[in-house]
Amino acid sequence: MPQGVPSSVPDDGLTTRQRRRRPLLVVHTGVNKGKSTAAFGLALRQWTAGSSIAVFQFVKSAKWRVGEETALRALGDLHRETGQGGPVEWHKMGEGWSWSRKQGSEEDHADAAREGWAEIRRRLEAGAHDFYVLDEFTYPLKWGWIEVDEVVSVLNDRPGHQHVVVTGRDAPPALIDAADLVTEMTKIKHPMDAGQKGQKGIEW
Amino acid sequence: MPQGVPSSVPDDGLTTRQRRRRPLLVVHTGVNKGKSTAAFGLALRQWTAGSSIAVFQFVKSAKWRVGEETALRALGDLHRETGQGGPVEWHKMGEGWSWSRKQGSEEDHADAAREGWAEIRRRLEAGAHDFYVLDEFTYPLKWGWIEVDEVVSVLNDRPGHQHVVVTGRDAPPALIDAADLVTEMTKIKHPMDAGQKGQKGIEW
Repeated sequence: MPQGVPSSVPDDGLTTRQRRRRPLLVVHTGVNKGKSTAAFGLALRQWTAGSSIAVFQFVKSAKWRVGEETALRALGDLHRETGQGGPVEWHKMGEGWSWSRKQGSEEDHADAAREGWAEIRRRLEAGAHDFYVLDEFTYPLKWGWIEVDEVVSVLNDRPGHQHVVVTGRDAPPALIDAADLVTEMTKIKHPMDAGQKGQKGIEW
Repeated sequence: MPQGVPSSVPDDGLTTRQRRRRPLLVVHTGVNKGKSTAAFGLALRQWTAGSSIAVFQFVKSAKWRVGEETALRALGDLHRETGQGGPVEWHKMGEGWSWSRKQGSEEDHADAAREGWAEIRRRLEAGAHDFYVLDEFTYPLKWGWIEVDEVVSVLNDRPGHQHVVVTGRDAPPALIDAADLVTEMTKIKHPMDAGQKGQKGIEW
């Protein structure tokens, strides 16, 4: 449970209230489970707070559909019908981004990833949402498809009060430097070590 | 993304299918954010899979209401009204357990914790739910209010296919030994280090 007591108070000229409302760049990295799951858990909190939520999944397969997608889309529908919570958008690279006319294919992952980032950049610069999940976004950074320096620069300069959560293994050092909150999910024990395969409701 | 390929296949006489369907004991521990959040993210997946979900929060304050509670309760209501997803129960120690006539007070946290565990034990032995979150449950274990050996024994012997997720710092070694999946949320960087206090939608 957070105690709400900062370990030090910076001399940055901000009031506590201003500092409290500062938008966060959050990175979930490390080799174990829980990076995306914890990001979608944060989306639950944001939904309750009435935030506009946008998820961008940098996954290769259109068939990849995690349980969180169905549940968060259901909450988005609930918002549209009753006004409770906030709106939810969910975009996936593998099936071709929803705003694009291109279909996903096995050939053009690098192009598709760059197209996804270009749209996220436009939305960040326009202050389009309150809460962004850039799921598995460290991979196109790692593979050099998208420039880390550009990403960090856009994130640092984003206007307004937009929270951004980035997930994936091997987060680049420049992204970690720019982040406010970085959690590494460290593996202590995993059932696949004991020969167990993934199962519905746990792994997806 | 899980690859679905176990690193070894055990000689346990189980088929892959039997092994795949084995219920999991999951522990989220460590000092950083994300332990409870990732557990509630898993609950999202379980909801989509139609599981019966029960959350037991071992928190002291009745006022403590995280955003996930509102959102997961909304999904539980949606299940009741439309049949989509699964049912959701949410029980909190601090306000007096919902099944108990006692009101929460500042005096009797140890009793309240023991009463919560007794109910969870009854439900596990009866196979009442598919997915349990025992949130902040490591604390009553750490403080000696509930016997770790009894908890491990009940968890090891639970019938049927019941997943259990336990969250909290300082998970006892016997619980970690019994678990199938243990993730430690390791702190790399936290905004409170930079003097930022918690904010709605992120910390609660």
